[in-house]
Amino acid sequence: MTHVYNDPAAFKDDILRGFAAAYPQYVDRVEGASGFQRAGGPLEGKVSLVIGGGSGHYPSYSGVTGVGFADAGVLGDLFASPSAEQVYRVAKAAHGGAGVVLSFGNYAGDRLNFAVAQERLQAEGIDTRIVYVTDDIASASADERGKRRGIAGTFTVYKMGGAAAEDSASLDEVERIMHKANDATCSFGVAFAGCTMPGADEPLFVVPDGQIEFGLGIHGEPGISSSPTMSADDLAAQLVERVLAERPADADGRAAVLLNGLGATKYEELFVLFGRVAQLLADAGVTMVMPEVGELVTSLDMAGCSLTVTWLDDELERYWVAPADTPAFRRGTAAGSSKFTTRRTVAADERTAAQEQASPESVAAAQVARDAVVALNRVVEEHKERLGRIDAIAGDGDHGIGMSRGSTAAAAAATETQGGVQTVLAAAGAAFGDKAGGTSGILWGMLLAGVGTALGNTEAVTPQRVAAAVQQSATDLQAFSKAELGDKTMLDALFPFVDELVAEVGKGRSLAQAWATAAAASVAAGEATASLVPKIGRARPLAERSVGTPDPGAISMGLIVTAVGEVLATADCG
Amino acid sequence: MTHVYNDPAAFKDDILRGFAAAYPQYVDRVEGASGFQRAGGPLEGKVSLVIGGGSGHYPSYSGVTGVGFADAGVLGDLFASPSAEQVYRVAKAAHGGAGVVLSFGNYAGDRLNFAVAQERLQAEGIDTRIVYVTDDIASASADERGKRRGIAGTFTVYKMGGAAAEDSASLDEVERIMHKANDATCSFGVAFAGCTMPGADEPLFVVPDGQIEFGLGIHGEPGISSSPTMSADDLAAQLVERVLAERPADADGRAAVLLNGLGATKYEELFVLFGRVAQLLADAGVTMVMPEVGELVTSLDMAGCSLTVTWLDDELERYWVAPADTPAFRRGTAAGSSKFTTRRTVAADERTAAQEQASPESVAAAQVARDAVVALNRVVEEHKERLGRIDAIAGDGDHGIGMSRGSTAAAAAATETQGGVQTVLAAAGAAFGDKAGGTSGILWGMLLAGVGTALGNTEAVTPQRVAAAVQQSATDLQAFSKAELGDKTMLDALFPFVDELVAEVGKGRSLAQAWATAAAASVAAGEATASLVPKIGRARPLAERSVGTPDPGAISMGLIVTAVGEVLATADCG
Repeated sequence: MTHVYNDPAAFKDDILRGFAAAYPQYVDRVEGASGFQRAGGPLEGKVSLVIGGGSGHYPSYSGVTGVGFADAGVLGDLFASPSAEQVYRVAKAAHGGAGVVLSFGNYAGDRLNFAVAQERLQAEGIDTRIVYVTDDIASASADERGKRRGIAGTFTVYKMGGAAAEDSASLDEVERIMHKANDATCSFGVAFAGCTMPGADEPLFVVPDGQIEFGLGIHGEPGISSSPTMSADDLAAQLVERVLAERPADADGRAAVLLNGLGATKYEELFVLFGRVAQLLADAGVTMVMPEVGELVTSLDMAGCSLTVTWLDDELERYWVAPADTPAFRRGTAAGSSKFTTRRTVAADERTAAQEQASPESVAAAQVARDAVVALNRVVEEHKERLGRIDAIAGDGDHGIGMSRGSTAAAAAATETQGGVQTVLAAAGAAFGDKAGGTSGILWGMLLAGVGTALGNTEAVTPQRVAAAVQQSATDLQAFSKAELGDKTMLDALFPFVDELVAEVGKGRSLAQAWATAAAASVAAGEATASLVPKIGRARPLAERSVGTPDPGAISMGLIVTAVGEVLATADCG
Repeated sequence: MTHVYNDPAAFKDDILRGFAAAYPQYVDRVEGASGFQRAGGPLEGKVSLVIGGGSGHYPSYSGVTGVGFADAGVLGDLFASPSAEQVYRVAKAAHGGAGVVLSFGNYAGDRLNFAVAQERLQAEGIDTRIVYVTDDIASASADERGKRRGIAGTFTVYKMGGAAAEDSASLDEVERIMHKANDATCSFGVAFAGCTMPGADEPLFVVPDGQIEFGLGIHGEPGISSSPTMSADDLAAQLVERVLAERPADADGRAAVLLNGLGATKYEELFVLFGRVAQLLADAGVTMVMPEVGELVTSLDMAGCSLTVTWLDDELERYWVAPADTPAFRRGTAAGSSKFTTRRTVAADERTAAQEQASPESVAAAQVARDAVVALNRVVEEHKERLGRIDAIAGDGDHGIGMSRGSTAAAAAATETQGGVQTVLAAAGAAFGDKAGGTSGILWGMLLAGVGTALGNTEAVTPQRVAAAVQQSATDLQAFSKAELGDKTMLDALFPFVDELVAEVGKGRSLAQAWATAAAASVAAGEATASLVPKIGRARPLAERSVGTPDPGAISMGLIVTAVGEVLATADCG
């Protein structure tokens, strides 16, 4: 379990402080952001590789920021995606003028947040590519490679991309090489025991004593099968067999091999296992090139390990063996070997805050919006432990704490922000997405901001316009998230609400009446998600295990729209 | 706990195999020995730094073998000293012609085994020095600095010594610098939870939930105080205060600083702690030079950490920041930077096995000796679990398993060896010491071989000569171990046996009769060690806690002499 922490809510900030103090020769903290770029960066004319994800996986991601590896690393809260705002700020700071590759493991929250950051960077003229890593063969079949999660294979893919960028490769080239490396990479993992988050009373998940869980994810996503404890040699055979099953037809046998420990499975155990792995790989005609045995992508003190193979050709081999010099991983004589030496001069941020004059009607509506966001925050606080418990069944248990962080920041931002309803909801949405991190954070942030955009700062706020604004924002959200109704997400409680709201308002009901009816429909739909099976971006075993439990995002949706309805009833806003 | 292993008795060998497979570019396995030397060694004209200790502490010791660090690392079984034989073989292989420094943490077993190896190397004309590290301020007072255990401070001392040797320093210089570095180094550690050895049903020790043990050793040696869980910031204050309390008057404030994790206390927690440590050190006027935060001296998956400070002057700073390139620790541009490039040609081992012709009487006695060693092995096997349990109260619980490994090897060697009683007991003793490792291993090995030497291969074996041989060997053993009677060691059960044996034989009793009487005295004396307080090489808190429990070595002494007595009774050997 986690023993060393101060306020659990400040864990990430405390990590950032300590890491900055330990490695000033390697990294600079990006001002005002939860990330680091390599010391002396950004480098003029160099493609910038920006990696990131939740914290709890050190040395991923800040620990591999440096020469020949990543230009910058962005950290979210424990096991939660960094917000789009954070990714944007770090990437912008690290941009050397030759474009940015954003890279991360394939998780829904990371995909959403990095995609929004990409949009913002592109809008500012920074050519930005995304490469997400999909190496975990336990998380989806080979036919659905794009749905696989990213685990320790992120290390080899980032390493090769970082080496290519260091070698003056163009943005197109770095992107191509990283996709190629990802396609050539397979990992398979096992877990023996779970980890406990700081301040939590119970482990995130439990592996029964004497059991091994095959394919369990690095955030505790359920595995594909379990087995009684076996010898190290038998375990090696299982890992090697799984990984070799996906050996590409054209692989000549050269491979970068990682045996990665998750945290509490220690080096001695890894070497015991690796002795047999090496022999089995050699028997299968595999030539290991500079293998690594150690802790590269951890999960706090989870007990378990994974085997990663990246099949090499001449190009990938060159980038795999290339020098690197970072706080946690060093190879060869990298220090000072960089081809890039000139620091890019970063222009001061040009912010032209053209504040639109808000109408009195919009200012009045803004006060209702403020009260609604405060109510949203209150109901989340009341239910955050229950939301966490529901989320722990099929996810990583952080829905409650993420929504709490986001809604608290949103309430504070709404309270402090003056102006029309668009301005207030934009501030609330930005704060929500930034502080919550993860999937729910960015979606709620977009939903709030989207309603504000549709209402604007000048027109009168009528029930019809509110219903239309909610409908518009929900539709945009669905398009962005790429989830379908029935996928067991918050959308399953959002659209019943939207449909009912539009219908009731269309019948001439007051906004408060219509909203109350719609909220009841949302609550019922949220509870009904217990019978659904998730389909998007999640592994099949998870799907099976989550049956019978509602989606936490759908439950919080019902709670929030109900709480907002109570505000509307009091506000008597027609 | 330890989840990944094959046969627990083969754990070390499996580690060695996997490590060799992982890092062939860094290390060569020393043939026939449980250790590694840097690839391409030994280097002509270079002082060789040979470090070692029990396994279970990776990256110590094999993981820091390479350019600018150790020339070779020797590994014992889990938490047990490597045998003198292993240390000798590895050091001999790694010797570059300019002398050897043997370095290790200050534990009784390591001190004995490395001292015997030093003697053998010296006897062969290899100038060999010993530097043991004593950095753990919790393990003895500052007045008794020499009694302190070695913990994570071994890392800085080895690093500086390795850098000096790489920089062409002479043997005298390397030894001086390492003593200086040790004198300048203090560590203080805490533990949150114990580790479980492979195959063990129970943890080596337990820290109660919600407790912190201050000063607990890296093999679970009891600490000096305990406290309820506290915040990371408060813990940082405790660590810094303890370590700064021993700041030397002449220190100018520069310091190498390590925050070392023991295994299950992960990087994120270490960074949270380090943020505050760094601030407190800065407030105290300390300038950190290239600090390291990570896992440098682990204890399997024990949860805990330690803070180490080595106060620097210009000389030590130069060696601290110097480049290094090893499997687990790399700094700067070390690869290929070595001043030494010529591999020393190692002459083939000259073995002149001048086998003395054994007399028929000695050959007959050798059969009794063989049976005695087999009986010794049998009684150890019968009681090994109980011996382990007794040892776990005040030690690391490996007495049973170590004696089992040693006596099994001794029985096999005795059975396979032809010749007189000296030859057979010499083979048994060598095998015992080599395979058991640790303190008991070397002492039992010396005892058996010593009895053989005193009996010789030619003279008839009489009760008087047996009693005199046992007395001689026991006396030599005491001189070597430097323990006093009453220090709560195996000697407390050995000397009552010796005295009684000599006395009874003097009265004209048969050897079997005399031995039986003496064995009964040994058993009684062994049980009586429960009332003693250990004094040698152990920390005071341990002394207090062990009261009421007999010494496991004294108990096994009584068991063994009793079992041997039964053989003598059957053999009817007068």
